[in-house]
Amino acid sequence: MDALNFNHELMKHSSFYNTNNPLDPEEFRRQGHMIIDFLADYYLNIEKYPVLSQVEPGYLRKRLPESTPYNPESIETILQDVQDHILPGVTHWQSPSYFAYFPSSGSIAGFLGEVLSTGFNVVGFNWISSPAATELESIVMDWLGEMLQLPKSFLFSGNGGGVLQGTTCEAILCTLVAARDQMLRRIGSQNMGKLVVYGSDQTHCSLQKAARIAGINPRNFRAVKTTKRTTFSLSPDSLRSAICKDIDAGLIPLFLCATVGTTSTTAIDPLGSLCDVAKDYGLWVHVDAAYAGSVCICPEFRHVIDGVEGANSFSLNAHKWFLTTLDCCCLWVKDPSALIKSLSTNPEYLKNKATDSRQVVDYKDWQLTLSRRFRSLKLWFVLRSYGVAKLRDFLRSHVNMAKLFERFVTSDKRFEIVVPRSFAVVCFRLLSPGMGKGASYANGTSTNGHTNGHVNGHANGHFNGHTNGKGDDHDHDHDDHNYMKEATTNEVNRKLLESINKSGRVFMTHSMVGGVFVIRFAVGATLVEEKHVITAWKVVQEHANAILSENY
Amino acid sequence: MDALNFNHELMKHSSFYNTNNPLDPEEFRRQGHMIIDFLADYYLNIEKYPVLSQVEPGYLRKRLPESTPYNPESIETILQDVQDHILPGVTHWQSPSYFAYFPSSGSIAGFLGEVLSTGFNVVGFNWISSPAATELESIVMDWLGEMLQLPKSFLFSGNGGGVLQGTTCEAILCTLVAARDQMLRRIGSQNMGKLVVYGSDQTHCSLQKAARIAGINPRNFRAVKTTKRTTFSLSPDSLRSAICKDIDAGLIPLFLCATVGTTSTTAIDPLGSLCDVAKDYGLWVHVDAAYAGSVCICPEFRHVIDGVEGANSFSLNAHKWFLTTLDCCCLWVKDPSALIKSLSTNPEYLKNKATDSRQVVDYKDWQLTLSRRFRSLKLWFVLRSYGVAKLRDFLRSHVNMAKLFERFVTSDKRFEIVVPRSFAVVCFRLLSPGMGKGASYANGTSTNGHTNGHVNGHANGHFNGHTNGKGDDHDHDHDDHNYMKEATTNEVNRKLLESINKSGRVFMTHSMVGGVFVIRFAVGATLVEEKHVITAWKVVQEHANAILSENY
Repeated sequence: MDALNFNHELMKHSSFYNTNNPLDPEEFRRQGHMIIDFLADYYLNIEKYPVLSQVEPGYLRKRLPESTPYNPESIETILQDVQDHILPGVTHWQSPSYFAYFPSSGSIAGFLGEVLSTGFNVVGFNWISSPAATELESIVMDWLGEMLQLPKSFLFSGNGGGVLQGTTCEAILCTLVAARDQMLRRIGSQNMGKLVVYGSDQTHCSLQKAARIAGINPRNFRAVKTTKRTTFSLSPDSLRSAICKDIDAGLIPLFLCATVGTTSTTAIDPLGSLCDVAKDYGLWVHVDAAYAGSVCICPEFRHVIDGVEGANSFSLNAHKWFLTTLDCCCLWVKDPSALIKSLSTNPEYLKNKATDSRQVVDYKDWQLTLSRRFRSLKLWFVLRSYGVAKLRDFLRSHVNMAKLFERFVTSDKRFEIVVPRSFAVVCFRLLSPGMGKGASYANGTSTNGHTNGHVNGHANGHFNGHTNGKGDDHDHDHDDHNYMKEATTNEVNRKLLESINKSGRVFMTHSMVGGVFVIRFAVGATLVEEKHVITAWKVVQEHANAILSENY
Repeated sequence: MDALNFNHELMKHSSFYNTNNPLDPEEFRRQGHMIIDFLADYYLNIEKYPVLSQVEPGYLRKRLPESTPYNPESIETILQDVQDHILPGVTHWQSPSYFAYFPSSGSIAGFLGEVLSTGFNVVGFNWISSPAATELESIVMDWLGEMLQLPKSFLFSGNGGGVLQGTTCEAILCTLVAARDQMLRRIGSQNMGKLVVYGSDQTHCSLQKAARIAGINPRNFRAVKTTKRTTFSLSPDSLRSAICKDIDAGLIPLFLCATVGTTSTTAIDPLGSLCDVAKDYGLWVHVDAAYAGSVCICPEFRHVIDGVEGANSFSLNAHKWFLTTLDCCCLWVKDPSALIKSLSTNPEYLKNKATDSRQVVDYKDWQLTLSRRFRSLKLWFVLRSYGVAKLRDFLRSHVNMAKLFERFVTSDKRFEIVVPRSFAVVCFRLLSPGMGKGASYANGTSTNGHTNGHVNGHANGHFNGHTNGKGDDHDHDHDDHNYMKEATTNEVNRKLLESINKSGRVFMTHSMVGGVFVIRFAVGATLVEEKHVITAWKVVQEHANAILSENY
């Protein structure tokens, strides 16, 4: 083939590009505007969808073709399919009636930052691969660290530093591996099997998973028991006992994960005294503030992380309650070199003068993966678009809405708050009356007016129009629950939650603490307003009424 | 505080929402359209920026404020700052003159899918949390698996299955941990320190990093040597020798990572015979086809993964060369239960009927992290928007552009192709003449017309207008390189690459194989057209001319 033919052959193929490059700017503009309108309309109509998807397993395979189309399809066709086939299978985390798990708080600013990152599509493994990606990340991590009043030792300005990870699972695995290797350098790798990792029985399951991945002997994972008496926070005395027992058994305490805002009940482990214990035995302390870390930018909440100065690392998920779209886990460490010693790689093809100069951060050495997105853009957009003032407003308004819901619960004697509320999650349950007590519970006739008519104003067939048991003729029922088996109460609440979620009107989830099945009401969806909280409580009452009528 | 005041207090806070919810649909629409226009304009103007960012370390901290603003800032201000302060620090991976590392191929469809995922912002850890996220992922992984003609045993339809991870690092770590635990269940965890992991000296550094994270004894990592004779692919005989030696030493072979398209030179490890060796000793084989996997949808390339049926797992990065924005690593496994046994968690708060029914996939148990984005949307959008036909065109056109560049190199005797090209990466270098040979090399006077004037048509001050050395009066120089020290040639090429990248007109990177510094020319940016390849070659020649004039 001579050169002329060779080029001619190329031309055949390049027609694809000239006429229809997959990144053609004007076609990008056209389709980009379409997707924005699609999403804006989605948010406008989001309340029309059932919050929890109501599809059955396998629904989608029945609706989609069996294989990739041979020829291109139009964006119009694809978006129509999203509307018709994908949306029914979406659980609407952005719905204002989403109160499940910990909500993922999106925002316009978080969205824009992520979109910009997607558009640039840089792979920022090291400084040179896109200096702005690295530098902006270091800067915003210092900004946010200061907003949280983290000790200077966690900031770049104090020889620590922050990095954006995807999720807390990654943050814990990275710090655990750093701690493990630091210890093994001292005591020798033959002692790997003796290392022990500590959390409480309320610690997020990602700790145990990280320990397993890091090769910690599964028998050496300690989920220290917590109790209702200490509102499910980890007791320093219990920790010390566990550590001493392990040392006596010839094991080597390595790592403690303390939690500020546990998943089940948002319990707060006492950082100061836990760090004191850890220090006595040389443990690395990681603080998992995935949920509650964000609210520490409000001075009135900052005390929940008092004592963090004794920890080695601290993380929070900005995608949980800080308006920053999934995924965005902020991790600060006091000693970045410990991370780097465990996680660095230095292949020839990544070598460059900036790295050699040691004047730059190469974030690939601070995380599990090599490739990384330009995540700092979204955090920067959020910090600037809302500022400290609005961010505090936002968090406080959620706490206040949770307080409102809490008052609804406490003012209805058929319910109880299971553990005191600390942030914007209310853990409650229905106190089922004694078996055979009949349906009278659901037909109470007096209200105390606490809700200013909000709740009562929406009575329907299921709802008997009377919601607050306080002072009504069912006071005597209230005490009956003491005589019931917890198991029955748990079953009633499981049924209640299932029925609430099946309605599609709200979505809440549960947990089990101290043997008690609790319904978790987590305020955190960005679109939530007071009216949604009020409706949610009405839905709870309606379904409670129905269940109580059916069963008793 | 009574209820009335309580509600009144709430109202104060909710003004933030009523007037200015951070996810207000109409404000979302307004700002969303702005960001689309910003990016469309960015793509329109992308060739005006230096491809490799030219900023100095620390540039951004000098330009940004020291802390988060107290009050909100407008999106207009923020986008202006992106333009003024962020863009100078961006290395433009989407530039058509980006030929570095492996490019990250964005596309309109990939972008839209990611944007939709960002907008829904669901956290799809398990099926119930958003059934469509799980089901679409399983479906597209079967679609893509079929396009690649993967054995049915890797597909859901054949009791295997696929999952979307972020990057290959995660895919390797997950499969390594699965393999490790499967082995330890058989031989007991006390043997952890004896497990051995194998790759070649060309295997991506993520294997070694994964092994370290998973707690494999660092002394038990084998980077089996490759040679130029076998074009840097892993020899089955060398693997067998390494395994036998380890067994003789009382160690236990565990895991082999074979690569199809290595990072340095896109070398292809022979899967069939490597899997045969691995089978003899019971190793788990993972195939890392991060780069070259995509092109296997073209029948003429499919043979490079022949033998994959003997492997346990296979992965490719759709964000590398499949139009799917970072991050999107496609991992298929034959035995999902091995992954699940190592990576599953089952906390109470995630329990649900769908999971209990065992009718659904909960992808949290197939990956490192719990939270996960709705990544399948972007892959689905790409598959449908382009179809099999255009995707093949796309990949073939890149290969053809690489062929064109390869011809430019081979037709200029001052250069050589260091290893044969397999896909769309050309590994070449300048053959520096003997010291003191003078500048005549850069002043060749004849051309052979191979490039139909494309290259010669853009002569400027640096460029002497004569590019192809074939048949010219410098033939005698060509052989001189044999007498030069490789080290000098390496230094010349390092200097050449630095000078090319400093120009900002193109960006290429290097690697070092068999002691030879090679410049890698990787075609893969979506916007690339033949003219950019031609210009790139012109830039290479100009800088080669300049360096040769200066030094010799």
